[in-house]
Amino acid sequence: MARPKGDSSVTEARKQDILKAAFEVFSKNGYRGGSLSQVSEIVGITEAGILHHFKTKANLLIEVLAYRDELASEISGVTESSGLEFVTGWLNLIDYNISVPGIVELYCIVSAEATAADHPAHKYFQDRYEYVIGVTTASMQRIHDDGYMRKNLDPVDLGRAIVALSDGLQVQWLLDRKWDMIDEHKAFFRRILTDEGAKLTGLYIKEKVIA
Amino acid sequence: MARPKGDSSVTEARKQDILKAAFEVFSKNGYRGGSLSQVSEIVGITEAGILHHFKTKANLLIEVLAYRDELASEISGVTESSGLEFVTGWLNLIDYNISVPGIVELYCIVSAEATAADHPAHKYFQDRYEYVIGVTTASMQRIHDDGYMRKNLDPVDLGRAIVALSDGLQVQWLLDRKWDMIDEHKAFFRRILTDEGAKLTGLYIKEKVIA
Repeated sequence: MARPKGDSSVTEARKQDILKAAFEVFSKNGYRGGSLSQVSEIVGITEAGILHHFKTKANLLIEVLAYRDELASEISGVTESSGLEFVTGWLNLIDYNISVPGIVELYCIVSAEATAADHPAHKYFQDRYEYVIGVTTASMQRIHDDGYMRKNLDPVDLGRAIVALSDGLQVQWLLDRKWDMIDEHKAFFRRILTDEGAKLTGLYIKEKVIA
Repeated sequence: MARPKGDSSVTEARKQDILKAAFEVFSKNGYRGGSLSQVSEIVGITEAGILHHFKTKANLLIEVLAYRDELASEISGVTESSGLEFVTGWLNLIDYNISVPGIVELYCIVSAEATAADHPAHKYFQDRYEYVIGVTTASMQRIHDDGYMRKNLDPVDLGRAIVALSDGLQVQWLLDRKWDMIDEHKAFFRRILTDEGAKLTGLYIKEKVIA
């Protein structure tokens, strides 16, 4: 017999509604352009009602980013045991990010602000980065073990480097969108994959013509 | 005959004092920990006096970062015509950054916040990134032309990638300092330099043992 829905599941459903509305608002308007009053309007709940569920605006933003992380994980399909499929999964994620600049902006700003030790999201981002770097490093190790990585490259260096590259390119892209963020990531993967690895991920170019 | 010092040079000297004090305060205490009142205490000027010279706190922070850019440029010695000396210059700069975590924090946060189109430092950071990416790309081109770059690598991709890597690694380092930011950059340069290029910059390792 199904467990009857009590107050807590109603509360949970309400929180999810607010979260989805907040995601929509900040995707569209970014960190500075998005506001609680816009979220309030979509859900049909007062700002006090939002704060009842999420305590502070900072907390709501962290939950929006955690929700974004779940989406990202689904879109990329990347896990700790990904090998070459990491490459296509990561590129899918960048492609998705390009479609939600407001969320990329929110992520850039909050992750930077949270580097300060007394920021409310400091611990959240410490854990998040440990997890993400762990997954990227494990995937690089797998690509190495499968023989698709160029010689003398260290999966541990590369795990950090991929996360750093994507974070840094996002800042550049938010400031100036007249270049291709996907191509820049493809170039990175070409630098680390063997020809065979590049062929299997559709990235192989016989020889790049450089002026 | 020397031009007599008028009001404007006194004002300029006062601004420089404030700027140096602000640099000291934010180097030590970071973006969230640093305050105008701390700057005020060092210079012996009221907060209103500081705002008379710099208009807003945001504006003072931008000037602190511009001052930091000048220092960085001196420390790295990197110019648009740098070749292999770019590599050692850039590593010197990372080494310097490690000694001023508060400024790194300030830089990370303000550059991220300034990605929003209506932020007062948006234009400043657009210009700054265009300049820095220009210099890194020109240096990569020179390394390529001098024959110290591995085959099939594109200086234009690498110019962006180096800036992105350094920015992204700074966020990781501010969140967790138990790894070596210099080593991570050295690994990047080893991935793009020929053996000869690596030898000339002191980065050559015969073969990296990878588990």
